[in-house]
Amino acid sequence: MITVLTGGTGGAKFVDGLRQIVPPEELTIIVNTGDDLLWWGLHVSPDIDSIIYMLAGKISEERGWGVERDTFFALRTMQQMGEAAWFSIGDRDLAMHIIRSKLLTAGHTLSEATAEIAIRSGIRARVLPMSDSRVETRVLTEAGELSFEQYFVQRRYQDEVKAIRFEGAGGAIPSPGVLEAIRSSELVLLAPSNPVTSIGPILAVSGIREALMETDAPVAAVSPIVGSAAVTGPAGALLKSQGFDVSIAGVADFYGDFLDILVVDSEDAKAAARMRERGKASTLSVRVAPTIMRDKRARMALARTAIDSCREFTSMLSTAQQD
Amino acid sequence: MITVLTGGTGGAKFVDGLRQIVPPEELTIIVNTGDDLLWWGLHVSPDIDSIIYMLAGKISEERGWGVERDTFFALRTMQQMGEAAWFSIGDRDLAMHIIRSKLLTAGHTLSEATAEIAIRSGIRARVLPMSDSRVETRVLTEAGELSFEQYFVQRRYQDEVKAIRFEGAGGAIPSPGVLEAIRSSELVLLAPSNPVTSIGPILAVSGIREALMETDAPVAAVSPIVGSAAVTGPAGALLKSQGFDVSIAGVADFYGDFLDILVVDSEDAKAAARMRERGKASTLSVRVAPTIMRDKRARMALARTAIDSCREFTSMLSTAQQD
Repeated sequence: MITVLTGGTGGAKFVDGLRQIVPPEELTIIVNTGDDLLWWGLHVSPDIDSIIYMLAGKISEERGWGVERDTFFALRTMQQMGEAAWFSIGDRDLAMHIIRSKLLTAGHTLSEATAEIAIRSGIRARVLPMSDSRVETRVLTEAGELSFEQYFVQRRYQDEVKAIRFEGAGGAIPSPGVLEAIRSSELVLLAPSNPVTSIGPILAVSGIREALMETDAPVAAVSPIVGSAAVTGPAGALLKSQGFDVSIAGVADFYGDFLDILVVDSEDAKAAARMRERGKASTLSVRVAPTIMRDKRARMALARTAIDSCREFTSMLSTAQQD
Repeated sequence: MITVLTGGTGGAKFVDGLRQIVPPEELTIIVNTGDDLLWWGLHVSPDIDSIIYMLAGKISEERGWGVERDTFFALRTMQQMGEAAWFSIGDRDLAMHIIRSKLLTAGHTLSEATAEIAIRSGIRARVLPMSDSRVETRVLTEAGELSFEQYFVQRRYQDEVKAIRFEGAGGAIPSPGVLEAIRSSELVLLAPSNPVTSIGPILAVSGIREALMETDAPVAAVSPIVGSAAVTGPAGALLKSQGFDVSIAGVADFYGDFLDILVVDSEDAKAAARMRERGKASTLSVRVAPTIMRDKRARMALARTAIDSCREFTSMLSTAQQD
């Protein structure tokens, strides 16, 4: 069993790599729901949607989100009728949000609704929202406190970020199966998603960080930072806002206590060597490999690297224990 | 002020005739909501939608419902994901139901939601749901009790109807403005909608039938029955199921106590003459005119006939009183 913690876009590409080499029934995907929003009265879970569309082979590779070859007639009509339209929902994509909202209104939990939608989408991998409770990523900027989607989509992450908080995380518990998956997996992977606002909300749900520390499984993260910048999106600015270095060392520091392996890009070979020198006492293993997922083959290769690095770590550890 | 009681398709055409000759601010349209349904978790008001699309100039004249040149990508996706798809909702049409559902969930009444949607659609005529309470037309057939849309759309009104009831009508009160419009209008028109299931639910809401009896305004209905059959739809079968003749006399009997004028088709000139002979004591005035609304001009002509017949009735009455 392999467990992966992930956000949306970048994480979905990594999950696409995994699904090419791991049988679906052996894959558990724990997904950030801090970006969830009530949009036109419908419950939208952007990261769950991206993972489901990717696994169902329906994602728009061109856009990185939503359904391939989707149309936007409902959206245009909503706009004509005076509704906000900065968050794009396609006509085919709408079906997802309508079904989820219907299931939630009928009293189902988000994980039940997600399981139902996954089955109807022909997905056999297990997709788990991080929590069935509402946890909302809030971004404090000069312009005020924004929801993540306001910050990211509406305002295109141009605001300087002063603070991040995860509203509701204190009282939220992991959804059923999350802790068990982390504890009983052969290995746990953190997708190259934004550490602060994609993986961060998952870690903020009570018990998840502890489970990552306690699990016997090796925990590997793929760095979304290459050199001194994020591959895409605001991960760099957000790490900086939290007082972390925008570098692979910053990513290692952010995950800190529970991380066993950090997979970094070949471009960071020297930085990796410096980390190894400085951190001889540290148990963190740094693995250098190409991490840019230009095409489906590169996604698969990165997934294999992450899995292999975990298996080598486990075998190294068992050799060390035998000595 | 002119008030019209109406259902969807046929009624919408009549309303199109009215809007061609009556300034919008002088028009109040009281609409059947007995066909309303929760579809995919969204509140759909088929008759209100038809009236709004007609007044906004957006209705599909080809289909007689929904938005012109609409697409059905969301519907197909819903079907692929295992949802019922026998009730067709287009992508542009979806916006209407999403906005209405959002407004209702936010605590607005159906009449407030309808007013808001009408404003956003650029409509100046007043569109009132018959009631803000849920009144549901239930059709008892050999196959069991069906909602109106199940009977009408899903099963194409092929089932023999044993009984009709309006669930919730007993406790329902008219929405704000309905009784006042009937009482204070210059004239009240009943569109050539299905008497039993389009006008019937409106009459079942407590106080509306009484207001029609008490109002000083003349009340005119356009017969949806021509000869011994309905122009379209199941009006004939439904009248029969209620023990009424499928003829203009049956329509007159159905409306009975409050009707002043019945506008019937030229084809029924002889039947009208027989009615006049038989009912010399009756106060019902029968007006013969073309009633088939083949095009926009015919709709306008019928609307003018209905209005004129009311004005002549009033002037005749005032002459009679002076005598």
